[in-house]
Amino acid sequence: MNEFELIARLAKSLPANKNVVTGAGDDCAVLDFGLSEKLFLFKTDAVVEGIHFTTDTPPEKIGRKALARPLSDIAAMAGTPVAALVTLGLPEKFEPEFVAKIYDGLNALAEKTGTAIAGGETTTNPGRIFISIALLGTVARGKQILRSGAKAGDAIFVTGELGGSLAGRHLEFEPRLEEARWLTEHFPIHAMIDLSDGLAGDLRHVLNASGAGAELLKDAIPVSRAAKLRAQKKTPFAAALTDGEDFELLFTVASGDAVKLLDAWKKQFPKLKLSCIGKIVAGGGITIRDKTGAQKLNAHGYVHFA
Amino acid sequence: MNEFELIARLAKSLPANKNVVTGAGDDCAVLDFGLSEKLFLFKTDAVVEGIHFTTDTPPEKIGRKALARPLSDIAAMAGTPVAALVTLGLPEKFEPEFVAKIYDGLNALAEKTGTAIAGGETTTNPGRIFISIALLGTVARGKQILRSGAKAGDAIFVTGELGGSLAGRHLEFEPRLEEARWLTEHFPIHAMIDLSDGLAGDLRHVLNASGAGAELLKDAIPVSRAAKLRAQKKTPFAAALTDGEDFELLFTVASGDAVKLLDAWKKQFPKLKLSCIGKIVAGGGITIRDKTGAQKLNAHGYVHFA
Repeated sequence: MNEFELIARLAKSLPANKNVVTGAGDDCAVLDFGLSEKLFLFKTDAVVEGIHFTTDTPPEKIGRKALARPLSDIAAMAGTPVAALVTLGLPEKFEPEFVAKIYDGLNALAEKTGTAIAGGETTTNPGRIFISIALLGTVARGKQILRSGAKAGDAIFVTGELGGSLAGRHLEFEPRLEEARWLTEHFPIHAMIDLSDGLAGDLRHVLNASGAGAELLKDAIPVSRAAKLRAQKKTPFAAALTDGEDFELLFTVASGDAVKLLDAWKKQFPKLKLSCIGKIVAGGGITIRDKTGAQKLNAHGYVHFA
Repeated sequence: MNEFELIARLAKSLPANKNVVTGAGDDCAVLDFGLSEKLFLFKTDAVVEGIHFTTDTPPEKIGRKALARPLSDIAAMAGTPVAALVTLGLPEKFEPEFVAKIYDGLNALAEKTGTAIAGGETTTNPGRIFISIALLGTVARGKQILRSGAKAGDAIFVTGELGGSLAGRHLEFEPRLEEARWLTEHFPIHAMIDLSDGLAGDLRHVLNASGAGAELLKDAIPVSRAAKLRAQKKTPFAAALTDGEDFELLFTVASGDAVKLLDAWKKQFPKLKLSCIGKIVAGGGITIRDKTGAQKLNAHGYVHFA
């Protein structure tokens, strides 16, 4: 049993009950407590020293990132965050002032997004800082956008620019809460996800959940300046496909809505780029098309011709 | 700034919003989403390898304990668990079969208590297993029992027997969910807490939150067999006061209800001991009384004469 088989096995046998509308496998769990207009979104996310930040990362940015990541998942369901709990694993020796600054960064983003910090826990994690955030939010009943709704013919959009997030953006990104709610209020969005694993990996999650494939236009994919500047082991295009931690939104709509949506977006969010990068097709997998032809993306997210 | 000053400082400056009824500082956060009959309980709790379990602990028991701890907090508020998310930090090398067994233990307790496992996350935590559980529950509106309601004159009760939990009970305890709900349905319980830090420490939490003191009767405190058998560095009595991880309930009721409650309890839960161990008094601190006199407990929870 490898790691993927393990996760698949675990996800299959999890206890459910009547409150669970959507369990493991989407951006958030969706719960129903009988409120007429709202469903609940429930998410946890952890950042770990040496994995998601380093010993050099300013503590305010560690705290900010720890909360921004699950906020991005709430955004991906078109929800509104309400309350978070903070589980802080700390080495035996730690600087209280450093921890206070982690909270400063976390609290500032909580204030900005209307999220209460309703408590949490401090425990010992020898050797490194481990921060897990549990986040509870709400979404208008029936307006939660899952990964599974993409349909052949849909246009695929991404917000912002992709790749090179490790150069700094991963500590400073804005969860797209307002944008996601605006989208679902004005257009019938079919599927949505936030880009945490990289465009190729996260699009694949949408495709697998929806039973579909995608055809991307290479020149339409918005490659960030950071991806271009940092290109060493990867081409900028490969970085945009696979770097991860972009925390932008990827969503699909019926192709007939695509132009109208782009126009309305430009008026509503003139500072944030929105790109139509391709379309959902029948079948499976991801094909990249450029002027020389089309090529399948392999399972690891790397395109052969890039 | 020491650790306690840090926590006090952090708890003071946490962002709140209109949904938060009770924030940091009780067994669970209490949230209001406008459901007429229910409030929500929100809790996170983590277990860490080398702290809360060892490399020798059977994996099923690790998973069981990880969920049982926050369930005990839901019990301490007289609530009902609904859904949990599991954050699993794993070393770079791990045995999938071992992780599957952690879930077996966790799932079994979830099934037994009606708790859905609605998802979670797996991440890397080099060197050791770190499991954080986020738990969402409900409580009948107005029936949540806080730490702050103890009144001078109240009788103090504890369920079960105390001390020596490390001998095995900490891996096998039953969260007192049914007992807590029965208590609040049949008696006006003033304050309640689950015993995780040890009787002395947790009673002190109740006293500080309630602005009161307590007088305990030494001979009335139920000392477990494990505490008696393991007494080495501590007397059995000191173990019952300070060992921690008992996960029994401590609660207070008006003294006029005490006898009636004891009688009703014996009929309802004949297999689970309930002990009246003393009373709430004006002032502060904990006094232990025996036939030779009374003595104050010091700040570290050790009694001088024990």
